[in-house]
Amino acid sequence: MPLDEFDLIKKYFDVGTISNTNVVLGPGDDCAILAPLEGQEICLSTDTMNEDIHFLSSLSGSAIASRVVAANLSDLAAMGADPYACLLAVTLNEVNENWLDQFSDTIFSILKRYSCPLIGGNVSKGPKLSITMTVLGSIPSGKAIVRSGARTGDAIYVTGSLGDAKMGLEMLRSGKELDYLVSRFCYPTPRIKEGKALRELASSMIDVSDGLLADLGHLCSASNLGAELDIKSLPISSYLKEEVGEELAYRFALSDSDDYELCFTIPKMLEDEMKRRDWSSLAPFTKIGTMIPGNNIKVLSEDRSIIEIEQLGYKHF
Amino acid sequence: MPLDEFDLIKKYFDVGTISNTNVVLGPGDDCAILAPLEGQEICLSTDTMNEDIHFLSSLSGSAIASRVVAANLSDLAAMGADPYACLLAVTLNEVNENWLDQFSDTIFSILKRYSCPLIGGNVSKGPKLSITMTVLGSIPSGKAIVRSGARTGDAIYVTGSLGDAKMGLEMLRSGKELDYLVSRFCYPTPRIKEGKALRELASSMIDVSDGLLADLGHLCSASNLGAELDIKSLPISSYLKEEVGEELAYRFALSDSDDYELCFTIPKMLEDEMKRRDWSSLAPFTKIGTMIPGNNIKVLSEDRSIIEIEQLGYKHF
Repeated sequence: MPLDEFDLIKKYFDVGTISNTNVVLGPGDDCAILAPLEGQEICLSTDTMNEDIHFLSSLSGSAIASRVVAANLSDLAAMGADPYACLLAVTLNEVNENWLDQFSDTIFSILKRYSCPLIGGNVSKGPKLSITMTVLGSIPSGKAIVRSGARTGDAIYVTGSLGDAKMGLEMLRSGKELDYLVSRFCYPTPRIKEGKALRELASSMIDVSDGLLADLGHLCSASNLGAELDIKSLPISSYLKEEVGEELAYRFALSDSDDYELCFTIPKMLEDEMKRRDWSSLAPFTKIGTMIPGNNIKVLSEDRSIIEIEQLGYKHF
Repeated sequence: MPLDEFDLIKKYFDVGTISNTNVVLGPGDDCAILAPLEGQEICLSTDTMNEDIHFLSSLSGSAIASRVVAANLSDLAAMGADPYACLLAVTLNEVNENWLDQFSDTIFSILKRYSCPLIGGNVSKGPKLSITMTVLGSIPSGKAIVRSGARTGDAIYVTGSLGDAKMGLEMLRSGKELDYLVSRFCYPTPRIKEGKALRELASSMIDVSDGLLADLGHLCSASNLGAELDIKSLPISSYLKEEVGEELAYRFALSDSDDYELCFTIPKMLEDEMKRRDWSSLAPFTKIGTMIPGNNIKVLSEDRSIIEIEQLGYKHF
């Protein structure tokens, strides 16, 4: 007898509770129940990934799971929040138990790493695979790092390196399998630790999910400011530089690469503090520019001439 | 120029905040932020509706919106919770502004009625329309009404009437337009007020979204009990009885009708209290049976002989 939706949930999405004292009631009732968090606010975000749009049909269950969880946790990271709990709605076209095994194993292994219990969900049938995750994070009241807090003169930083995921996707499309750049696309790391470490330091923050120019553009527009970027300061991995050369690497770093790095601003008066602290256990922070008046992002070459770059960033419609 | 996802969100899904002091930060950042609720637990549920599976492609934007919100709020009602906030992830195949207008107007008008702000969401492209809503509710700590609390001898009740939605759907399929039964399918009422009123009275509760037998079955299995139903006591609307006759009406009431009514149990010692209270502002409560030992649901005729009924209820796979 084929598995029905209730069997599927039991077998693949209710496999052992991730120990978390905040969960009063886990999956299986009309609602899950979470305990109140004294002195904490709750951050929430939801993100959908669709077959053929957000990922190739051929992508493994494990890579899809990694990308879905990372995209969602990355939104918590971008507020400086701690993962608290999540819900998962999966639309399947057919029941492929091998795929489900892989997908579910990966989901739970990542969620466990972040002590983020899956407290509820939904399994339904549809024309193509579609996954919507909703994440909740906790943050001490008033401490969330929003997009609108940047001020003129604030330094702009990013975590890790940029552009890798875009190249990884292109390599995957042309049939390449395991490789550092492919793994940056398939298994992104949500920058939760980094986001938390930036509480009380960053004046604004966003995650890079649609490309640096597009996402920094959102931060600028929320802060009513412009930005100036030094192209040579963009953090490019040696792998990317080797694969495509310097010029294309910078282009990838600016355009629609969903690296799930954090882009944040630091007030001038806290820049010394940034240098003083020991960040060695975290992904590197690189200063890439400065917030300026206006509403444009200027990308400057070494001699400070403006480089013309079409505003790139993934758009659905 | 066609609307991109950010324009779509701005135009259709960020239209005026529903006033709610719990919302620290609404849509537009990486996450929304909710204030902590002292002494309250948070109930959460997520539900997906897919074109061609959960609704006909021809169903109006307004009816789809009503069904999505009702299905989600109904899960809060089934815990006795108050709506607190929600998130909405919409996958569209194309941008149809008329449809979006209708859909969004209806979503916001219902959410306003329940003081439930939409605090975040996602718009993406996919092969067919798919909508995933995540709802949060609040409930005083320890007061949620779960499925597992029923005891032998507890009386089983339902709100409103059963079977209407199934007939409504059949009438819609055969081309009928406006009618009471069709409206019961298209515009279900989540029983929020009723759920809240049953706090400290009901020992267990579930909403009827897959049919009475299926959902009462979930409640029985969570409570490790069986149930005995008196078929003649099932609340059937006069419209349904008139349309299909008594026998088929009972069958519809038991089978896969998603009426979004509540099914709940009342301990023997509280039955007098049930009779004493003034419920006149709520949907009617009807006693339909009793919880018994075992793990089966017996449906009894007037002469208390067992009626054989295949276990019905919608299953996806």
